Amino acid sequence: MAEYKSPVRDMEFVLNELIHVESLTEIKKFEDATPDIISGVLEEAAKQIDGTIGVLNESGDAQGARLNDGEVTTPDGFKEAYAAYAESGWIGLDKDVEFDGQGLPHTLATAVTDMLSGANAAFSLYPGLSNGAYEALKAHGTQAQKDMYMSHLSLGDWSGTMCLTEPGAGSDLGQVRTKAVPQKDGSYLIEGSKIFITAGEHDLTDNILHLVLARTPGAPEGIRGISMFIAPKFMVNDDGSLSERNDIVCPSIEEKMGIHGSCTCVLNFNEARGYLVGELNKGIQNMFVMMNSARLMVGMQGLGVAERATQNAITYAKERKQGRPLTRKAESSFDSDTIIVHPDVRRMLLTMKSLTEGCRMMAYDTAKHVDLSENHADGALRAASKARVDLMTPICKGFITDVGVEVAGLGVQVYGGHGYIKENGMEQNLRDSKIFCIYEGTNGIQAMDLIGRKLSMNGGTLPKDFFADIKAEMESAGSEQSFITAPLTAALEALETATDWLIESKQQSPNHSAAAAADYLQVFGLVTLGYYWLRATKVATGKDGAFYQGKLATATFFATKLLPRVHGLVPVIMAGGDCVMNPEEDVIL
Amino acid sequence: MAEYKSPVRDMEFVLNELIHVESLTEIKKFEDATPDIISGVLEEAAKQIDGTIGVLNESGDAQGARLNDGEVTTPDGFKEAYAAYAESGWIGLDKDVEFDGQGLPHTLATAVTDMLSGANAAFSLYPGLSNGAYEALKAHGTQAQKDMYMSHLSLGDWSGTMCLTEPGAGSDLGQVRTKAVPQKDGSYLIEGSKIFITAGEHDLTDNILHLVLARTPGAPEGIRGISMFIAPKFMVNDDGSLSERNDIVCPSIEEKMGIHGSCTCVLNFNEARGYLVGELNKGIQNMFVMMNSARLMVGMQGLGVAERATQNAITYAKERKQGRPLTRKAESSFDSDTIIVHPDVRRMLLTMKSLTEGCRMMAYDTAKHVDLSENHADGALRAASKARVDLMTPICKGFITDVGVEVAGLGVQVYGGHGYIKENGMEQNLRDSKIFCIYEGTNGIQAMDLIGRKLSMNGGTLPKDFFADIKAEMESAGSEQSFITAPLTAALEALETATDWLIESKQQSPNHSAAAAADYLQVFGLVTLGYYWLRATKVATGKDGAFYQGKLATATFFATKLLPRVHGLVPVIMAGGDCVMNPEEDVIL
Repeated sequence: MAEYKSPVRDMEFVLNELIHVESLTEIKKFEDATPDIISGVLEEAAKQIDGTIGVLNESGDAQGARLNDGEVTTPDGFKEAYAAYAESGWIGLDKDVEFDGQGLPHTLATAVTDMLSGANAAFSLYPGLSNGAYEALKAHGTQAQKDMYMSHLSLGDWSGTMCLTEPGAGSDLGQVRTKAVPQKDGSYLIEGSKIFITAGEHDLTDNILHLVLARTPGAPEGIRGISMFIAPKFMVNDDGSLSERNDIVCPSIEEKMGIHGSCTCVLNFNEARGYLVGELNKGIQNMFVMMNSARLMVGMQGLGVAERATQNAITYAKERKQGRPLTRKAESSFDSDTIIVHPDVRRMLLTMKSLTEGCRMMAYDTAKHVDLSENHADGALRAASKARVDLMTPICKGFITDVGVEVAGLGVQVYGGHGYIKENGMEQNLRDSKIFCIYEGTNGIQAMDLIGRKLSMNGGTLPKDFFADIKAEMESAGSEQSFITAPLTAALEALETATDWLIESKQQSPNHSAAAAADYLQVFGLVTLGYYWLRATKVATGKDGAFYQGKLATATFFATKLLPRVHGLVPVIMAGGDCVMNPEEDVIL
Repeated sequence: MAEYKSPVRDMEFVLNELIHVESLTEIKKFEDATPDIISGVLEEAAKQIDGTIGVLNESGDAQGARLNDGEVTTPDGFKEAYAAYAESGWIGLDKDVEFDGQGLPHTLATAVTDMLSGANAAFSLYPGLSNGAYEALKAHGTQAQKDMYMSHLSLGDWSGTMCLTEPGAGSDLGQVRTKAVPQKDGSYLIEGSKIFITAGEHDLTDNILHLVLARTPGAPEGIRGISMFIAPKFMVNDDGSLSERNDIVCPSIEEKMGIHGSCTCVLNFNEARGYLVGELNKGIQNMFVMMNSARLMVGMQGLGVAERATQNAITYAKERKQGRPLTRKAESSFDSDTIIVHPDVRRMLLTMKSLTEGCRMMAYDTAKHVDLSENHADGALRAASKARVDLMTPICKGFITDVGVEVAGLGVQVYGGHGYIKENGMEQNLRDSKIFCIYEGTNGIQAMDLIGRKLSMNGGTLPKDFFADIKAEMESAGSEQSFITAPLTAALEALETATDWLIESKQQSPNHSAAAAADYLQVFGLVTLGYYWLRATKVATGKDGAFYQGKLATATFFATKLLPRVHGLVPVIMAGGDCVMNPEEDVIL
C-alpha cells in the first residue's frame, strides 16, 4: 500500500531558500508570515493531512462517492476528515481576515494545496472548489453577498461549485443554454441542466453555493450574453440561517476513470432561485476570475500526484530486489540487488524527481507573484507580477498536469506488474491524474491561451521579460553552474527563435501557430524548469548534506537528459501547420 | 459507447500492397495463401470479432473476471464468444495442419490478433496465451507430448499459460524458487507459488496446460538451474480423456487497473503432477521460445488498443461540435463547428493515426519475417529474416506498447471530459494498455535487450543490415517522396551516430548505454516508422481516392511533426550515463 508523506523539507527549500517567501513580510498584510510561522504551518498541515486525509486515498478510491435519492454520500472518513480540516482553518489559510480567513500568503496556501493533492487528490477537490467561489464573490459580489457567503466559504462549513459545462457547451461556453429569468424581487429563476459539476452535491457541508453561468431573456447570443449567478443549495434567511431547499437536483453522478472519491454531478436547475453576481452579460469575464485561480490549483493537483508517485517509486526502488548491477560479474548464482542499481530504473526515478521538484519551484514562485500582484504597495511591481502570473498560468496548468500523467505512468512502470495491480496504489495515480489535463480548460486550450493571448499581451512583453530574467540568472551564474547554463543557453535560444517564429507566422495564418501550440507549451515548460533548476543549483552549490547533493544531482540529470528534448520540438514547431490543416476531413479516416 | 470496427482496408493495404504477403505462396506450405484467401479470412474474422467479441469489451471491463471457491468465472458472454471463436478455427489459423491448425501464415494470424486486441484486449489474452504453450511444445516437447496436447491448443478446447513469475522473481527469473521433485514414473511433483498468471484459471476451456518454470533438487543456482514443466489442470489419460484434477489451486486473482475481463491469478502448485519439457536446466532458453512470440503478440495488443482509440477519436472529432475555426471571423453568435476544425485536435488525431498505422506496417512486416525465417527454402534468407525478427522484437514490444499508451491517452484527451467518464469507453483504453508496457519483459528490459544483445548479435550486422535496407528504400525514392526522404535521411544519420556511440561507449562502461537504452529504443522506433511511412508513400503516390490521399497526408504529418523528435533524443543518448549512475542512493530521496 502506498503512503504519502508531505515533502516539508522540499517545500521549505523552495519557500525559504529559493523564492524567499519571507520577502512578503514587507507587505503589511503579511508581516506575520515569517519563516518560523511558515515552517510551523507546514509542519502542522503535514501532520493533519498525512495523518487523517492521506490515509483515505485508497479507500476513497475503492468506495467512491455514491448517489442515493439525490443525496451524495462521500467515502467513509471524508466527512470527519473534512470537518477537522476546516476546523483547523486550512481552507481559510489565505482568505481575508475580515471574512474569517487567516490572511496568510497564497504562496503558503499553495504549498498546503500541494500536500492535500498528494495526500488525496479526490478529497482535495471539495475544499478546492470553494476557492473559486470565494474569489468570484470577492471580485464581483455585492457587499451583501460578500457578507452572506464569504465567511462560510472561508470557514468551510459551506462549499462552492463552478456550474459552467452543459452537454452542448464544454470548451465552447458561448453555447450555454441555461436560462435565468428575472423576478420582481431582483432574484432570478434558473432553468437548465449542467454536467460535470465537481462537488455539486455531497454531505460534507451544511450548504453548497453554486456559481452558475446562464443566459437572461433577450441577452445577446454567444459569450457576450452570459451572466453569472449564485444559487445556494439551501436558501439563506436574512439573519444568515438556512431556509428551504432550492430546486437544484442531482439526478446522477458520473462513473469515471479516477478521482472516485470526488462526486462529478449532473445538476438540474428547476426554476431554482439565483442572484446575479457582477454585471449582466459579463459572466464569462467574471468566470475567468475563478478559472485562472482554478487553473493554478489544477497544476498543484498534478504536482501533488507526481510527488506521491515519485516518493513511493523511490522507496520501492530502494527495497525491491531484482537482478544485479551491470558492472558486477555475471555468476550463475547471486543475491539480487535493489532495483535502484539499474540505470533504466534510475533514469525513471530521476525523471520523476527532476520534473516534480522543478514544477514545485515554478508553481510556488508563480503563487508568490499572485501575492505580489494582489497586495504589493508598488503598482509597477504589482503589474509586473500580474503579467508573470498571466504568462505562467497556462504553463502551470498545462505543463504540470502533463508531468503528472508522465510521472504517474513512470511510477507504475518502476513497480512493474506490482504497479498495475491496485493494492500498491500506483495505478490510482495514473487514473486520478488524467483528469487534470482536461478540466478547467484542456491542455490544448492552455496551449492556445499561451500562444494566442499571453505571447501578445501587453505588447508582447510577457515572454520578453521572462526571458530577460532567465538571462540575468545565467549571467550571475558561476563556472560551477556551467553544466546547466550551457544547455539552458541553447534551450532558451531555441525557445526565443520559436517564439519569434510563432508571432510572425500568426500574421500569415493562425493555424501555423495553433498547430504548434502543444509542442510550444512543452518547450516553454522545459526551459522554465531549466531556469528554476539553475536557481536551485545556485542555492545548493557548496552546501553539505544529502539534500543539497540531491538537488545538484537532480539538476544535472535534468540539464543533461531532459532539457535538450526541446531541440527535437523547436524544428517541429517551425515546420508550420500545413501538414496539420491541409488534409481534407474525409482523408482523416 | 465506443465501437470497434476491424480496419480491414488498412490491413489489406499493409498485407497486399506494402509487404506483398502473396510472396509467401512461393513457400509450399503457404501456396493457398493467395490475396483472395487473405481477404476472405480478414473479412470473416472481422465479422465475427467485431460482432461477437468487440461488443463485450465494455461489459467485460465493468463485470470483470470473478473468483469463487477457486473457480474463475469470466464475464458474461465470454464463454459463448470464445467457443464460437475457437470453433471457427481462428486460434489454429497459423498452427500446423498435422495438429489441427489451418496452416496459414503467421502474418495473417498477426492481423487477426490485431483485430482481436482492438475489439477486446482482455478477451484476446485467453487465446493469446495458448500460442506460447503451443510453440514451447512444438520446439521442445516429446512426440508424445505433442500428440497429447498440441491439437487441443490449436482447436482451443484447451488453453495454455506461462507460469514464470513468483513474488521474489519477476524480471529476475534466476530467483525462481518453485521446486520440481522427480518421481519414479518419470513425472515430477511441483511445489510452489506463482503470481500474475494470466488465464491461470477460467471457465472457457475443458483443460488448462500450465507451462511452469521450476527447479529440481540439486540443480545449479540461478538461471542455469531452471527447467520447464507442463502441468495440466486436469490430468490426461493415455486415451486422451480427462482424468482427476491436478493439485493446482487459484486462491486469489488480482484487482488491476484494467484488462478486468482477463483473470490474473495466483496459482499454488501443491505437489502438482508435471512433466519435463525439453532438457533439464534449459528452462530459461525454452521459455524464450514462448517469450519472443509473446512479446510480438503484446506489441499487437498495444496496436489493437491504439487502433480502437484512434478510430473512435476520429469519429468523435467529426461529430462533436464546439467552437469555430481560427480563420473564421469572430462573431458574438455562431453555430459551432465540429472539433476536427481545430489545429490541436487535428494534431492529436494525426499523431494517433500516424503512430498506429506506422506500427501496423512494422508489426506485419516483422510477422512476415517470422514466416520466412521458419519456412523459407533458402537458408540464407531464413537466417536474414530471423535476424530481422530478433532486431525488431524489442521494438515491436517496447515501442508499440508505448505508442498504445500515448495514443490511448490522446484518445481520452480528444473527448475531453467525455473521455474521462466511463460511458464513452475511452478511459478503458488507457487503463487496459498500460500493462502492455510491463508484462512479457518491461519496456526497460526491451530497451536493454535491444542495446545489450541485438546491436551486437551476429557481429553487429543486425542494425547495419536494417539501416542498409532503409538507405536502399530512400535511394529508389523519387522527388515526390522528398518530403519524407529528407527528414528520414537526417533521422537515420542521427540513429547511426547514436548506434556507433552506444557500441563504443559500452566498452567503457555498460552503464552509459544502459542509461540511454529507453531513449535509444524511442529513436529506433521513430526511424523505423519513418522507413515504413516512406514505403507507404511510394505505394500511395499517384493513386486516387481518399484512402491513398490519407496515407500521403499521414506520412507528411509523421515526417514533419514526429520523426524530427529524434534530434532531441540523440544528444541526450550521447551525453552518457554519469548523471544517471553517479548519484549515491541516499541523495535520491
